[in-house]
Amino acid sequence: MAGNTFGKLFKITTFGESHGAGVGVIIDGVPPGLELTETEVQSELDRRKPGQSDVTTPRKESDEVHFFSGIFEGKTTGTPLMMLLHNSDADPSAYDSIKDLFRPGHADFTFLKKYGLRDHRGSGRASGRETAGRVAAGAVAKKLLKLRGIEITAYTLRAAGVSCKTINFNEIEKNPMRAADPVAAKEMEKRVKKLIDEGNSTGGIIECRITGVPAGLGEPVFDKLDALLGHAILSLGAVKGIEFGAGFACADMSGIEHNDWMDEDGFQTNNAGGILGGISTGEEILFRAAVKPTSSIEAPQETLGVNGKPAEIITRGRHDPCICPRIIPVIESMAALVLEDLFKEQSSLND
Amino acid sequence: MAGNTFGKLFKITTFGESHGAGVGVIIDGVPPGLELTETEVQSELDRRKPGQSDVTTPRKESDEVHFFSGIFEGKTTGTPLMMLLHNSDADPSAYDSIKDLFRPGHADFTFLKKYGLRDHRGSGRASGRETAGRVAAGAVAKKLLKLRGIEITAYTLRAAGVSCKTINFNEIEKNPMRAADPVAAKEMEKRVKKLIDEGNSTGGIIECRITGVPAGLGEPVFDKLDALLGHAILSLGAVKGIEFGAGFACADMSGIEHNDWMDEDGFQTNNAGGILGGISTGEEILFRAAVKPTSSIEAPQETLGVNGKPAEIITRGRHDPCICPRIIPVIESMAALVLEDLFKEQSSLND
Amino acid sequence: MAGNTFGKLFKITTFGESHGAGVGVIIDGVPPGLELTETEVQSELDRRKPGQSDVTTPRKESDEVHFFSGIFEGKTTGTPLMMLLHNSDADPSAYDSIKDLFRPGHADFTFLKKYGLRDHRGSGRASGRETAGRVAAGAVAKKLLKLRGIEITAYTLRAAGVSCKTINFNEIEKNPMRAADPVAAKEMEKRVKKLIDEGNSTGGIIECRITGVPAGLGEPVFDKLDALLGHAILSLGAVKGIEFGAGFACADMSGIEHNDWMDEDGFQTNNAGGILGGISTGEEILFRAAVKPTSSIEAPQETLGVNGKPAEIITRGRHDPCICPRIIPVIESMAALVLEDLFKEQSSLND
Amino acid sequence: MAGNTFGKLFKITTFGESHGAGVGVIIDGVPPGLELTETEVQSELDRRKPGQSDVTTPRKESDEVHFFSGIFEGKTTGTPLMMLLHNSDADPSAYDSIKDLFRPGHADFTFLKKYGLRDHRGSGRASGRETAGRVAAGAVAKKLLKLRGIEITAYTLRAAGVSCKTINFNEIEKNPMRAADPVAAKEMEKRVKKLIDEGNSTGGIIECRITGVPAGLGEPVFDKLDALLGHAILSLGAVKGIEFGAGFACADMSGIEHNDWMDEDGFQTNNAGGILGGISTGEEILFRAAVKPTSSIEAPQETLGVNGKPAEIITRGRHDPCICPRIIPVIESMAALVLEDLFKEQSSLND
Repeated sequence: MAGNTFGKLFKITTFGESHGAGVGVIIDGVPPGLELTETEVQSELDRRKPGQSDVTTPRKESDEVHFFSGIFEGKTTGTPLMMLLHNSDADPSAYDSIKDLFRPGHADFTFLKKYGLRDHRGSGRASGRETAGRVAAGAVAKKLLKLRGIEITAYTLRAAGVSCKTINFNEIEKNPMRAADPVAAKEMEKRVKKLIDEGNSTGGIIECRITGVPAGLGEPVFDKLDALLGHAILSLGAVKGIEFGAGFACADMSGIEHNDWMDEDGFQTNNAGGILGGISTGEEILFRAAVKPTSSIEAPQETLGVNGKPAEIITRGRHDPCICPRIIPVIESMAALVLEDLFKEQSSLND
Repeated sequence: MAGNTFGKLFKITTFGESHGAGVGVIIDGVPPGLELTETEVQSELDRRKPGQSDVTTPRKESDEVHFFSGIFEGKTTGTPLMMLLHNSDADPSAYDSIKDLFRPGHADFTFLKKYGLRDHRGSGRASGRETAGRVAAGAVAKKLLKLRGIEITAYTLRAAGVSCKTINFNEIEKNPMRAADPVAAKEMEKRVKKLIDEGNSTGGIIECRITGVPAGLGEPVFDKLDALLGHAILSLGAVKGIEFGAGFACADMSGIEHNDWMDEDGFQTNNAGGILGGISTGEEILFRAAVKPTSSIEAPQETLGVNGKPAEIITRGRHDPCICPRIIPVIESMAALVLEDLFKEQSSLND
Repeated sequence: MAGNTFGKLFKITTFGESHGAGVGVIIDGVPPGLELTETEVQSELDRRKPGQSDVTTPRKESDEVHFFSGIFEGKTTGTPLMMLLHNSDADPSAYDSIKDLFRPGHADFTFLKKYGLRDHRGSGRASGRETAGRVAAGAVAKKLLKLRGIEITAYTLRAAGVSCKTINFNEIEKNPMRAADPVAAKEMEKRVKKLIDEGNSTGGIIECRITGVPAGLGEPVFDKLDALLGHAILSLGAVKGIEFGAGFACADMSGIEHNDWMDEDGFQTNNAGGILGGISTGEEILFRAAVKPTSSIEAPQETLGVNGKPAEIITRGRHDPCICPRIIPVIESMAALVLEDLFKEQSSLND
Repeated sequence: MAGNTFGKLFKITTFGESHGAGVGVIIDGVPPGLELTETEVQSELDRRKPGQSDVTTPRKESDEVHFFSGIFEGKTTGTPLMMLLHNSDADPSAYDSIKDLFRPGHADFTFLKKYGLRDHRGSGRASGRETAGRVAAGAVAKKLLKLRGIEITAYTLRAAGVSCKTINFNEIEKNPMRAADPVAAKEMEKRVKKLIDEGNSTGGIIECRITGVPAGLGEPVFDKLDALLGHAILSLGAVKGIEFGAGFACADMSGIEHNDWMDEDGFQTNNAGGILGGISTGEEILFRAAVKPTSSIEAPQETLGVNGKPAEIITRGRHDPCICPRIIPVIESMAALVLEDLFKEQSSLND
């Protein structure tokens, strides 16, 4: 329990803190005999790692993954695959000046209330660095899903007040914002750089599309496909909302408008986002996640000290002005973990 | 597994179909010695039951709850509390005409794909009637939470294109739309009645506010408070999105705007919706759920038959033009189940 | 949690007390499309029910099973199969005289210590009647296992100081002791009847043999096949020990003696009881369970009252002098639940 | 799932193989604020490590534990405590000569059947070395239990055909057999040394006594205290049986003999081994585990090759002639994990 484990049959457990020895993940439920290299996993981690561009944090974290167990002669053995990432470039002393202040928008206050003590070095367990383990596990899930014919693609749909007008998957990895529209990407980048100069940050919206999922995946009551995806994506600290298909717009639609109709070629619309009654329809699965602006900003803010007295805080350092580009591989990973788990559940049902 | 169980320490399992013998729920984890009557549970079920007003379905389901186990001399014993609701007024023959058609917006197609067969009578397990079990369990959770000083209040924020301008908790149960603004409620009601005449339906937005939750509740990684609430609320078939605090609006906010600031009196804003890093801040917890328009509409629609041929479908009968008023107790119940479970988890952590 | 659920993928939850409305079970994870009748389940329940012979309790409990959900037109739907057994012939007033005494060998004292209150009518949740739900679920598991070619056979190996000298499966259901040796059965019966006259009871040993399990079933670390069987069988209140293959005798064996050797025809001995490293070897799975003498005896005993004062207790009534014949279907059921669950886990691993 | 996780609220997950990078464990559910040093954990690991005496394997495994996460400034933080043990002195080439043979009594054959491939180096995941992670976690559980007033003491009751005549806890750590009787210990040691010379091994019986457990611990149906202890102890590959209190002897007892009677001073006998109806009585908890003779012996044995042909096998190397002395800390650890978990469950029930 205690919430460090996700999934049931393709189950991951993460551990580690941003400024301790490192972070990592165990996957329990990897099928035996899968060829797997550290390089494959690394390529997903490199999409998440800091310092990729001038719109992400300039921190240098190596994020170098090592297989610790569960691999023998280049293949998975069916036993727990443990992947380890040692911390480096960690400078805990940078946090000394703020160790007695609650950083606005961070979990400093809530961790202290929950545990009675906290690791103040760079958010400790609440750090975004914890998601490196998720991405490592997600890389394995993605590889398994690819063998099932499934592709998961997320991109920045909106950031700094700019939305993509076109969706072109080939553009995503070509711009630092990971936007699906190169024109919008340029404008986003410009605005984000301005925010950096102002010591400020921005939020955004990530859209995720999943193709190749056959009809019939998901459990119909509490573990609906959308409920599990919601759980997965909302377990990212920066995500404050998720919607499927037409999403919140459905509130203003009528049944005639919203119901997806079928003919002999299948569904002709997809307001449902590929999910009906919690089960996949065979159409593209589509969801959007609301990403809050980065909490760590250089501009001075009012806050409270551990001593109960107000104080001004300036979070110096090396923070992302917009988390969108780096959260994308994490969102894809979480979606992959949900899907791989449900495939296993479906096969167990029919066994 | 298979998704008919929710929660870990205050754990519920539901069973039953809309047109079988009945529906029900088991709660495992009720503390011993709690005084509990069927009447208390019934009063929550009555808020969900059909036929409450002329903006809900005129179906008459008794929804009468019976304690089957776990109670002795008016008190819970600490063993599984099973609550049973027998079906009545079920007219499965009403579904004969559409048993070979996939109703648009329903789980007919996806259930058949998942299971290879399906109970075509009124959605079977996918029926909204399944949620009666959740509400019965939620009534118990709510009672326990009340003893902890917690109140959960949900209401229709928007429906049929009309939004509440004011939020007054005292108004909610006074109008059939369960809107928090009596003026908006009147207009919603008018528009919904017009949709009934047109054989159409509408969606809406439910807002839920939870007071009294102390700071420190929630697990910081995968089982964040918002992740669990998201899982819970998105496990309702009609919900297509959820957002916390500022929600999707955070995408267009800057860090300076979005970060909630604190002074010696605590938080001065609540863009976070009462949750930071997945843990409660002690502020009001606030989320909104997008409710899709009822799928069952009388207007003719194009669809597919089980035989693979297109057909026109007319879903006669007795359906809600807007699910908002009746989903409110279900949403409150799911939120209550999450919170009660997390309280137990927190007490186990510190034990 | 709270321990009323067993299994992961073929998961059961039981509920109910001996003198409340009834008992029952939910199975979550039944594959869809299985033809299943109440009669099939009833035939297993009839092996467990009281009043079968003059060496079992003369209590008349109907133990009549009803399918409440999860069945449509004679087939399972893949949704929760709920089976209900209403109580009858319950005479709670029979317990009035002992409601303030702790019956020796019973859970009266421990339940009161755990919950702070207890249902004193016939052990409540701690009653052997709770196992009726397990047998109903076990009947379904056994049917599924039969389709996999697996047979589970348990029998009384020893009771009242008499051991079977021969093992003949055909004899088991022909004698009231369910012993595998008709000669030993006669002697057991004679001695048990004498114990009834003395207001006393006896223990025994049940042996269980499972054929048809392919090599490779079981999880190698914490969920070893023997660990799960041990958990399952020790979850019966009357069982005080379990051993596999050579069992406790292995303590006095040398490695040369105990190691099962193989040739091209496979294993030539089976000291391991069909399990190595927690995984099935393909040989017969064999275990023995120690069954304690029935706690409810008519002979007067010294005990303690709820008021903390010593008292004499006489447990009148209708109790089994030896639980062996009636625990056999329960043991088979628990073994069946473990195996069916592990098959599903294995199929999920390789998916 | 997949069985690498044990416990629910004080939950451990182990990983690693005997000849890979190392082994380790994550504990999820450690209360925050516990002072904990690697030295404390190491002292338990040293009781399990090879090379302690001339009746254990002369292999030198450092078994040196490192805290990787979950500790800050000498205290637990409430987040996952990960403990790592790097492998050393591993000589996988020693296994080259037997990599195509199934070692009798080992999991070689069953792993291959289960996974389709296997890590042949020293049993891989099936190695006893996996239990180092359990002992590290058990050391933490034991520390927490000590704060609750609970002591767990296991010892060799019988080995090589010799039984303890007296039980003296102070003697256990003074002799290499960890027997509770110094006279019996001497004789055991003598016989074990003879078996070493013969290239043979022996089994034994471990007895475990737990004091200080209050009445009321354990869940009454599937998660009975004895069922969980049985699961825990039978999850050790060398254990082939477990019994509680009078154990298998209860089969030959009558109810009058077996029922523990009470007077105002509580229970006057303890045939139940401290557990009634799956719940602790407040008396000493007592169980015995049957330990099989070590499978790895130097004497030549007949077996099967991976190629399906019979072969002679000689397992050279560095193996324990009797696993009893080294399994004792593992058994204590597994018992500690069960108890700590149940305490947390009990506190969650009453919350």
